[in-house]
Parts: sequence; C-alpha cells; structure tokens
Amino acid sequence: MHARFEIMTSRHNEVRDITSRVQEILRGSGVKEGVCSVYVPHATAAVIINENADPNINSDLLDALTKAVPEHGGYLHDRIDGNATAHIKAAIIGPSEIIPVSGGELALGAWQDVMLCEFDGPRRRQVIVTIIPDTHR
Amino acid sequence: MHARFEIMTSRHNEVRDITSRVQEILRGSGVKEGVCSVYVPHATAAVIINENADPNINSDLLDALTKAVPEHGGYLHDRIDGNATAHIKAAIIGPSEIIPVSGGELALGAWQDVMLCEFDGPRRRQVIVTIIPDTHR
Amino acid sequence: MHARFEIMTSRHNEVRDITSRVQEILRGSGVKEGVCSVYVPHATAAVIINENADPNINSDLLDALTKAVPEHGGYLHDRIDGNATAHIKAAIIGPSEIIPVSGGELALGAWQDVMLCEFDGPRRRQVIVTIIPDTHR
Repeated sequence: MHARFEIMTSRHNEVRDITSRVQEILRGSGVKEGVCSVYVPHATAAVIINENADPNINSDLLDALTKAVPEHGGYLHDRIDGNATAHIKAAIIGPSEIIPVSGGELALGAWQDVMLCEFDGPRRRQVIVTIIPDTHR
Repeated sequence: MHARFEIMTSRHNEVRDITSRVQEILRGSGVKEGVCSVYVPHATAAVIINENADPNINSDLLDALTKAVPEHGGYLHDRIDGNATAHIKAAIIGPSEIIPVSGGELALGAWQDVMLCEFDGPRRRQVIVTIIPDTHR
Repeated sequence: MHARFEIMTSRHNEVRDITSRVQEILRGSGVKEGVCSVYVPHATAAVIINENADPNINSDLLDALTKAVPEHGGYLHDRIDGNATAHIKAAIIGPSEIIPVSGGELALGAWQDVMLCEFDGPRRRQVIVTIIPDTHR
C-alpha cells in the first residue's frame, strides 16, 4: 500500500510535476476505489495540486510565496541554517495532498496535476504514496 | 463511497457553506466511524474548514488573500488566461479537507463549517465526498 | 480508532509540539500500516508538520503569518469578536494533517514534527487522532 520514489530537484525554488509517477503506483496497486495520499517526509518541501498545462502558474506561485515570505527577512532560524523562508513556505503549503480514487484512476479535475514544491534545493527528495482502498461493501 | 454534487457560484471570489450537503451524504452512507474527504476537482477553487456563524469571516479571508496575492500582480500566466491569482490562492488553500467521522456524524467543532472557496467565478463547481470507513475491529 | 487529547496553550500565538502524543496513540492502536489523521475541532487553531529541532522556526512562522495577516487589519469580524486574524490564519493553515503509518510508526522525515498552532490563546484545545488501517491484503 505504501510506495516510495525519489526525485532530484535542480533549482533552489522549483515545482515538479509528479502526477504520472503517482498514477503508475496507483495502477500497480490494483485498487479501484478509495483515496490516495501523496506525502513528502521533508520540512522544506511540500505537495500541491494545481494546473501544470501552463507551467508559468508554478513560477507565479513561487514568486508570490517569496513576495509574502521574503528570503532572509530577519528570521531567527537564519542564524543557524539560512533556510527559514523554506520552512515557512513548507508549513503553509503542507507536506501532503489526498486525492479520491475512482475506477482505478485519480479523480483529478481536467486542470489538476500533482506537484512537489522544492523550497530549499537542489536536493534529493522522497515521495511516499499511500493507497487506502474502500472496503465498504 | 464516493458521492458528487454540484454548486453554482455567483461571484468572482466567494465562500459557500457546503456542510449540510456533506452531512447528508455521510448519513446516507451509513458509515459510523472513519474519515470523510471533501475534494474539489478544480485548480481555481478550494476547500476550507472555518466558522460561518459570522459570514464576515469569509469576506475577511477573501480580502486577506487578495491583499497577499493581488489581482493582476504581474503574473506570467495572466498573459494567457488572466486568472493567475485564482490559481495561486487555490494552491495555497488546497483542494481538500479530511474530517473525522464519529457516531455517524462529522466530528466538526462547535465553530467549524465546511466551505468551498471560489476564486474564479461565477462557475459550476463539483464536490467529491469520499467516506473511508474504519474497519479496524 | 479515534482518540482525543487536550492541551492547554499558554500564549496568544503559539506552536506546540504534539508528536509524542500522536505516536503514543498510534502505538496503542496496534496498527502497523495505514495513515494517521491529526485534526483540531477549532476555527482559530491549526495543525502543521515542520521542524521543531530549532523552535525558532515556529516563531519565524508565527511572525510571518502575522506580517501577512496583521492583527486588527480592518476586518469586518473584528467588530464582533476581535479575532478575525486568528480565523484567517487557521483557514490558510488548515485544521489537519495526514501522515503515512509504516511498520507501526509515523513515516515522518528526520526533520518533521507534528505541531498544533494556536492563534487565539491561551485556550484549552482538543486534538482528534484517527488511525485508518490498511486492509488491502
């Protein structure tokens, strides 16, 4: 029910589409109905669901977050590690999303993709996919 | 276990209480213990849990989001579709919430309601409700 | 499958580590594989997952949220209750997190802790922990 995969990010702030990786794991599980959790075990990365048909949306999101939580904005944690803004962004966005599973597929909308947000890259990141089957029959 | 319903929003930015619709689906399922996922398959809408006893809280939330992510704030995606701010807000808030189910009811607090956030309306929106029963007995 | 515990917060804005309480409930459940939901039934509190090895990260998060959503920033709800900013922060962060369970333990990353965010304290707060076992075998 759990599967893990890794991705290597290439920039300091970056959004990476992981939809096909999650779909592949779901199909391999054989589960037809239930929910799917996508989770990153990291404190400076996060998971979002949004449109990737125009990847500029991801750039806009990263810019808006950096505007709201500026780099080196006088944070206490920056005295230790220099990445306070990455932690704050990750806490606001959150490390996971839950997607309904219907007919063996993610019930994503036409304009929804599943994406990993990197806020302190480049780094090797893990993604944990958990499929919870519906047993209510 | 999955149920869908539609709502037609009436404003560009709007918060709509969907608690009673979700409760109705939960009661129809007959599930007494577990969790309930409320999911919107859209990239410019979102789901929150908060107080609706004073609907001004929703106006305050929408105003605060627009202040943090201004309309037409120089976004790249606005060259294509004009709704970058809606995507950014939806990504930050997220498309779903998970609520514990106890005694056949949503375990909401006294001041909690389940609400759909519209950031690019008016539009017809879908809501997917998934009940995951507890089978641990 | 559900368990509840209470914590008494001591400041107006505060982040409290609840990881060990959640782990204790998980171990008591005997569930080895699945997911764990941590939910607060409150409209002015929230749950995050982030690093607490340096507690300054929590102070930085609280300061960044207050900068983005200032106290008494002309909110309509403040005419009634004075805590609009707490509601807005809680809606943005959200009342719950879902964590994979693997080998009877929370699949948290090395730098992840589970924490309650208080935005309108000091108050007595409840936390609902729900363990959803994997039954897919």
